Amino acid sequence: MCRWMAWSGQPVLVDELLFKSEHGLIDQSLRSRLGVEPTNGDGFGLAWYGAGEGPGIYRSVSPAWGDANLRELAAHIESPLFLAHVRATTGTAIQETNCHPFRHGRWVFVHNGVIAGFHGMRRELMLAVDPALFPEIEGSTDSEVLFHLALTFGLEDDPVAALEHMIGFVEATAERHGIENAVQASMGVSDGDRLWAVRYSTERRSRSLFASADASSVRQMYPDNPRLQRVRDEDRLVVSEPFSDLPGLWNEIPESTVFIVQPGADEQRPFTPRRETAAVPA
Amino acid sequence: MCRWMAWSGQPVLVDELLFKSEHGLIDQSLRSRLGVEPTNGDGFGLAWYGAGEGPGIYRSVSPAWGDANLRELAAHIESPLFLAHVRATTGTAIQETNCHPFRHGRWVFVHNGVIAGFHGMRRELMLAVDPALFPEIEGSTDSEVLFHLALTFGLEDDPVAALEHMIGFVEATAERHGIENAVQASMGVSDGDRLWAVRYSTERRSRSLFASADASSVRQMYPDNPRLQRVRDEDRLVVSEPFSDLPGLWNEIPESTVFIVQPGADEQRPFTPRRETAAVPA
Amino acid sequence: MCRWMAWSGQPVLVDELLFKSEHGLIDQSLRSRLGVEPTNGDGFGLAWYGAGEGPGIYRSVSPAWGDANLRELAAHIESPLFLAHVRATTGTAIQETNCHPFRHGRWVFVHNGVIAGFHGMRRELMLAVDPALFPEIEGSTDSEVLFHLALTFGLEDDPVAALEHMIGFVEATAERHGIENAVQASMGVSDGDRLWAVRYSTERRSRSLFASADASSVRQMYPDNPRLQRVRDEDRLVVSEPFSDLPGLWNEIPESTVFIVQPGADEQRPFTPRRETAAVPA
Amino acid sequence: MCRWMAWSGQPVLVDELLFKSEHGLIDQSLRSRLGVEPTNGDGFGLAWYGAGEGPGIYRSVSPAWGDANLRELAAHIESPLFLAHVRATTGTAIQETNCHPFRHGRWVFVHNGVIAGFHGMRRELMLAVDPALFPEIEGSTDSEVLFHLALTFGLEDDPVAALEHMIGFVEATAERHGIENAVQASMGVSDGDRLWAVRYSTERRSRSLFASADASSVRQMYPDNPRLQRVRDEDRLVVSEPFSDLPGLWNEIPESTVFIVQPGADEQRPFTPRRETAAVPA
Repeated sequence: MCRWMAWSGQPVLVDELLFKSEHGLIDQSLRSRLGVEPTNGDGFGLAWYGAGEGPGIYRSVSPAWGDANLRELAAHIESPLFLAHVRATTGTAIQETNCHPFRHGRWVFVHNGVIAGFHGMRRELMLAVDPALFPEIEGSTDSEVLFHLALTFGLEDDPVAALEHMIGFVEATAERHGIENAVQASMGVSDGDRLWAVRYSTERRSRSLFASADASSVRQMYPDNPRLQRVRDEDRLVVSEPFSDLPGLWNEIPESTVFIVQPGADEQRPFTPRRETAAVPA
Repeated sequence: MCRWMAWSGQPVLVDELLFKSEHGLIDQSLRSRLGVEPTNGDGFGLAWYGAGEGPGIYRSVSPAWGDANLRELAAHIESPLFLAHVRATTGTAIQETNCHPFRHGRWVFVHNGVIAGFHGMRRELMLAVDPALFPEIEGSTDSEVLFHLALTFGLEDDPVAALEHMIGFVEATAERHGIENAVQASMGVSDGDRLWAVRYSTERRSRSLFASADASSVRQMYPDNPRLQRVRDEDRLVVSEPFSDLPGLWNEIPESTVFIVQPGADEQRPFTPRRETAAVPA
Repeated sequence: MCRWMAWSGQPVLVDELLFKSEHGLIDQSLRSRLGVEPTNGDGFGLAWYGAGEGPGIYRSVSPAWGDANLRELAAHIESPLFLAHVRATTGTAIQETNCHPFRHGRWVFVHNGVIAGFHGMRRELMLAVDPALFPEIEGSTDSEVLFHLALTFGLEDDPVAALEHMIGFVEATAERHGIENAVQASMGVSDGDRLWAVRYSTERRSRSLFASADASSVRQMYPDNPRLQRVRDEDRLVVSEPFSDLPGLWNEIPESTVFIVQPGADEQRPFTPRRETAAVPA
Repeated sequence: MCRWMAWSGQPVLVDELLFKSEHGLIDQSLRSRLGVEPTNGDGFGLAWYGAGEGPGIYRSVSPAWGDANLRELAAHIESPLFLAHVRATTGTAIQETNCHPFRHGRWVFVHNGVIAGFHGMRRELMLAVDPALFPEIEGSTDSEVLFHLALTFGLEDDPVAALEHMIGFVEATAERHGIENAVQASMGVSDGDRLWAVRYSTERRSRSLFASADASSVRQMYPDNPRLQRVRDEDRLVVSEPFSDLPGLWNEIPESTVFIVQPGADEQRPFTPRRETAAVPA
């Protein structure tokens, strides 16, 4: 179990949202309210777009609440689009290569949830990964395998379809193993231009996921931050759990839904796993 | 705020008490019930007596619940006397030299609590440390300074008097700084033969501290552990908070008290800070 | 490239051999003379047999020369059989799960060397691992895959045959990939009773490997250590490079050879990779 | 012993100088040619000016050559002025608070060298630190104490005079302790606008220190880097040892000299420790 957040909009210093929020992600790492466990202290990660080629990634096995370097970086990195993740392991090793976000080229991926029975399916799922991508897998989490399956299914060409294929493939594999309710997933994906936020679970009782309602809600949460007073209507925060209790500021992303933040109007559509396993690459 | 435990008695594998206990110290690192904060995830330490010269020390900045090495060591180190500590920093850096136990020769020291206004008194308290001991101070915690003050006041010769002098000196210094309720301390000290457990706070509302009632209480907590079924009446667990809810197994150590586990009968006596500041070494 | 050492004999404090040796493994981590690179600073590991069930393992990503905990453990852990390893990565992540020794039940494994073209063969080699063992693979090194292949080929039943099968299988796979001189390996294996040390490379120019000549050579290297003055003739040190320059103390293990330290006389025999790939489990 | 580098000039991606240099600082961390030891693997640090308030700092106890996060940050942080440092401890703990650069407000400080007999003088030197600055000292190095002494002597008002006072004070203290050749120091200091590089040792045999000769030397070192082809004459690299062997590219900073990189022409003047100990703050 984990918690994550993403920002897409005006360039901000990362810590304006990561640390200087009432019940921000760092507070959620110590005192999650809606998560399965209150503590998400088994490492963290940050991916941001800005200077340099593609996204930068900072990952550490320290708890996010106590990492002096994270505080420094957040206070000195400015970005129009970033994702952050705090981890609570469900058993796999605490190591940087198991921390989210995962990256491939310009693409990054975070996941909050779990694949039931992953231990027994790991080999089979890894075999389905494109052999050209296989050597990229450095850690031992289900999440990293999900990401590489999504890439295998064409994430870079048609992200939503690839994610739907990926989840469908995992569910089909789990069924063959006699595993029920295989997938529990809130996922964030970005290529630096757009942000996809998926809320889905096989049993239709998914981890929480929210998006800021509109520019005025961001302004209301950060009344003293001049930069955030200038947000546009299309700037958006996506969070595992709301940063504040003020009513009207957050829209819950519905079950089995993908929410897309992009230039222009957001898009929200049903997320439906696909079972065409014939499409699996050989 | 922190939590700690100590064992003195039959040689045991450390993990029999550290991990294989219902609400043991590792569980307290994640879900403390009686502590100020539920999470004690800012590092940990273990000191044990056994093979080799003097106590061995293993300290890490990882949370105790997730450290693979701690699990290994605990499962493969046997000791008749050990102390373990999980840390929740009150602001000082998360680094191994700030993790307890601290050591000097055969002596080790753990502390749960805080010195109010330590930041402003640090220089003055450090100046009172014996210049010969000064270079040993490697970290930045109040606890390490308390230990070196106690050594300065003669811990190795008369432990209880030295601890009483040390606390009295800190309280006197705090008074000069206009600080109220300066000391909050549950402390554990050992030289490998005896174990001193002190519960004291200036305001007389000290952090919790308990000792196992007698051999039968240990047997009752570990019914399936053949080794712990053979404990003698003088074997003793001292813990920040009880490992189990079974009534009658634990004696609370009273306010302003030092409890001494030693060969033969335990000893319990009042702990009274001493103000003879004239005794401070030049 | 890496360096390793193993001890089998009288119970010793680990640091008597690991730290208190003229050109011991810790010195080799900083100043290797016979290795490909002088620096082996990308983590280390120690496996020892002693108290508790099976071998204990301590692994860290710190350089061995600077790890305060390693120094502590070595000074306080006594063992009749241990293996230590210092790592210089050939590209895979610096993380504990990539540090040697690797373990399965009572068995441990260290490797110095490299599989040429591993990146491209990783998927194929991992597929050949027994599916029941597959989920145990936590890291991304060639060495961990070699170990699990050896287990797949029956390491626990017939260690030498399994290692020969494993190497033969890797060489055959490499040939199919058009890779020359695939294997470069000095390997150490133990089950707590015996120690197998293999020196082999496809091109017959293997990494260095030495064994202490006899009890008198150990006595000569540690003239001031009373415990090591009492070693028996069958006590043995195996090292990547000699701890001292004294002539006559060390026997070089020949090319394509397995050296077996065991109760009674040592055994040394040719090591010949086997190509019966039909024996690969389905 | 350590190595450091600094850049002042055109905004660059940090990795263009830190990693993509022939014998850059990362290579020096593994294979220093002019340092006392070839290996500088006991942690590192980076301070940069750019987005956010004051300098950002990233420090880690990992060797610089293997830290995945450093590689990421360097590739995604752009800065017109940064300092980087790789550490080889002379005995003090390997912990982030002992890694350079040290920071106070907008000021940062790196040091390569050692104070002879520091262990015995530490208390006395720390006592001379302004009590208001004392609580800022988090680690145990001589370097951090030097920085806080320089701040005590007025670094923020008159940097060169403060550094001269600081060194004079340390030399005077050492003399009272009967210590010869007390100071060995190459130091880098910046406030984000200017960069001071000092080369000084009591015995006049100081650690090496070089500055890039002029814009054309930077262009010559990075022929394929379009950004570095546009450097101005006042842009400057300062390094413990030259990045390349091309003659004419580097000027050695002379003994007992401070070199100042600033808007307009550089300045170079004698560095002369001052002994007015009466100026020490009470």
